Amino acid sequence: MKKTRVLTGVTPSGIPHLGNYVGAIRPAIQASLNQDVESFLFLSDYHALIKCHDSEKVYESTKAVAATWLACGLDPERTTFYRQTDIPEIMELNWILTCNTAKGLMNRAHAYKAAMQENADKGQEDPDHGIEMGLFCYPMLMSADILMFNADKVPVGRDQIQHLEMARDIAGRFNHRFKPLFTLPEAQIDDNVETLVGLDGRKMSKSYGNTIPLFESEKKLQKAVNKIVTNLKEPGEAKQPDESPLFDIYKAFATPAETDQFTQMLADGLAWGEAKKILAAKINEELAEKRERFAQLNAQPALIEDILQAGAVKARQQAQPLLEAVREAVGIRSLK
Amino acid sequence: MKKTRVLTGVTPSGIPHLGNYVGAIRPAIQASLNQDVESFLFLSDYHALIKCHDSEKVYESTKAVAATWLACGLDPERTTFYRQTDIPEIMELNWILTCNTAKGLMNRAHAYKAAMQENADKGQEDPDHGIEMGLFCYPMLMSADILMFNADKVPVGRDQIQHLEMARDIAGRFNHRFKPLFTLPEAQIDDNVETLVGLDGRKMSKSYGNTIPLFESEKKLQKAVNKIVTNLKEPGEAKQPDESPLFDIYKAFATPAETDQFTQMLADGLAWGEAKKILAAKINEELAEKRERFAQLNAQPALIEDILQAGAVKARQQAQPLLEAVREAVGIRSLK
Repeated sequence: MKKTRVLTGVTPSGIPHLGNYVGAIRPAIQASLNQDVESFLFLSDYHALIKCHDSEKVYESTKAVAATWLACGLDPERTTFYRQTDIPEIMELNWILTCNTAKGLMNRAHAYKAAMQENADKGQEDPDHGIEMGLFCYPMLMSADILMFNADKVPVGRDQIQHLEMARDIAGRFNHRFKPLFTLPEAQIDDNVETLVGLDGRKMSKSYGNTIPLFESEKKLQKAVNKIVTNLKEPGEAKQPDESPLFDIYKAFATPAETDQFTQMLADGLAWGEAKKILAAKINEELAEKRERFAQLNAQPALIEDILQAGAVKARQQAQPLLEAVREAVGIRSLK
Repeated sequence: MKKTRVLTGVTPSGIPHLGNYVGAIRPAIQASLNQDVESFLFLSDYHALIKCHDSEKVYESTKAVAATWLACGLDPERTTFYRQTDIPEIMELNWILTCNTAKGLMNRAHAYKAAMQENADKGQEDPDHGIEMGLFCYPMLMSADILMFNADKVPVGRDQIQHLEMARDIAGRFNHRFKPLFTLPEAQIDDNVETLVGLDGRKMSKSYGNTIPLFESEKKLQKAVNKIVTNLKEPGEAKQPDESPLFDIYKAFATPAETDQFTQMLADGLAWGEAKKILAAKINEELAEKRERFAQLNAQPALIEDILQAGAVKARQQAQPLLEAVREAVGIRSLK
């Protein structure tokens, strides 16, 4: 039976935090263990360039994201794990798709429309003020990323469904015009995906400044946890789970039985300070070993590079024959 | 003394005709002989895909254009002669530039605006109706073509000056943001460039259907020349040079002395039929040997391919270190 090919891209645009771990890394690695699935995971550093013009940050993020996924248990033997910029075939496909994509399709992309709306809200006359072509063309590159490997499924959040539909649209147009070479990818939406709340109870996000670090020291973990918003209830007073985000964060790392027990302890008057110690210990229980691996990998970036290079070889074995067929189909052929 | 690097792209979008020869091929080959110049000439087959979705036509045009230039005397030892699709570095640079180009710049490109105007003229409500991203993004790819080789000068017609300005603009933005890696290219406008008139006296152009073939048989050449528009003057009647396009075509192939002589013969009452024989013979004098070489090359496409491959090796020797520096500058680096 043919395995389902599942492809996931991770944009290296910062150092992963605990929210990324719970919301993306942990479930993706879990999913990659499914025997019916052939999984592809890549660092989309060419996407990082769209918004980030700080070269050090691009470089550091790429290293940190690669080390994080590997430390969290991504098995490069099992998953084809590569860096987008090591696969030049994607860039060639990107242009060929560009020549077969309606401009109107890009005009309708959410991210672009949001940027125009922002201009309008600011009273900016030019709707395209400050917008660069990377943002505008991004759904085409995303299509190339997916179609290059004929992925069957792409796990995405609801906000990315439109981009998957664009990839299907672009694939369909190519298949119709030239030759049916591309699989129409399906969005795989998991509504049960965990979203971790941050220190202030909103979704944990770098842009809110409410994150808990993933792989800094145990001490820094405790320090971050200590900042979780609580109310003024004294030790001894009964507390409800919804009175502080710390309960939801605990739940993301504990078994149901442990969570019930924690609820009881809060009801019995557990002090917030004590609760924070219990939470940090709980998180640490899951992360300690991974943190160790992360530190080891970070100390040997050459090892990460070797893994990425081996992944690129595997990925290009898939990409090259497909690009060859695509080139042939559009008329780019050897004269021999 | 550093030689001036001159880069020219030729889009393989049809079989070259006599107008292409006089207006582009002959002067470019002449210019490539200049000792102060280092010349780069490439077949821009990735540009051909923007408008042409007929794979056979792309393939046949690429072969014919390569054979034509070589037959006309392009010396691949002297000129770096390559096919765009053999240089994947261009595609990578294209994306990196995409991430550093304002969308507003592309909005203002003539070709895109002309396509929108056409929609407006047709009463089409959607200004982007039928417009594909290839057309919209074309000035970025052209910038990548030029900047990838740090060309000093690009010979262009007046209609292409804007694209050169865009390439300068894009290069300037990159140089300012990251590192001054790119030469700002200059448009090289030759107002003396010859434009050959066609059978009907308008500019010779495939779209007017008024062309004279370049390398078909001598017989077909005569047949085409016989179709040149003349007036009803009889043999023996005095004729003026401006009474038929055949005079201008003759002039493009003759010395000034020969042209004067031809003027005199017309004034003396040369029959149009005789004039057409003289013209065809004159053209054939210049083309006969080249036509022979063209036939030889066409019979050995493998030879053309070998020449293009050797050109790609030379071109990539230039492109690779520059792309490496560009990647480094934006943060795409080996972790080793």
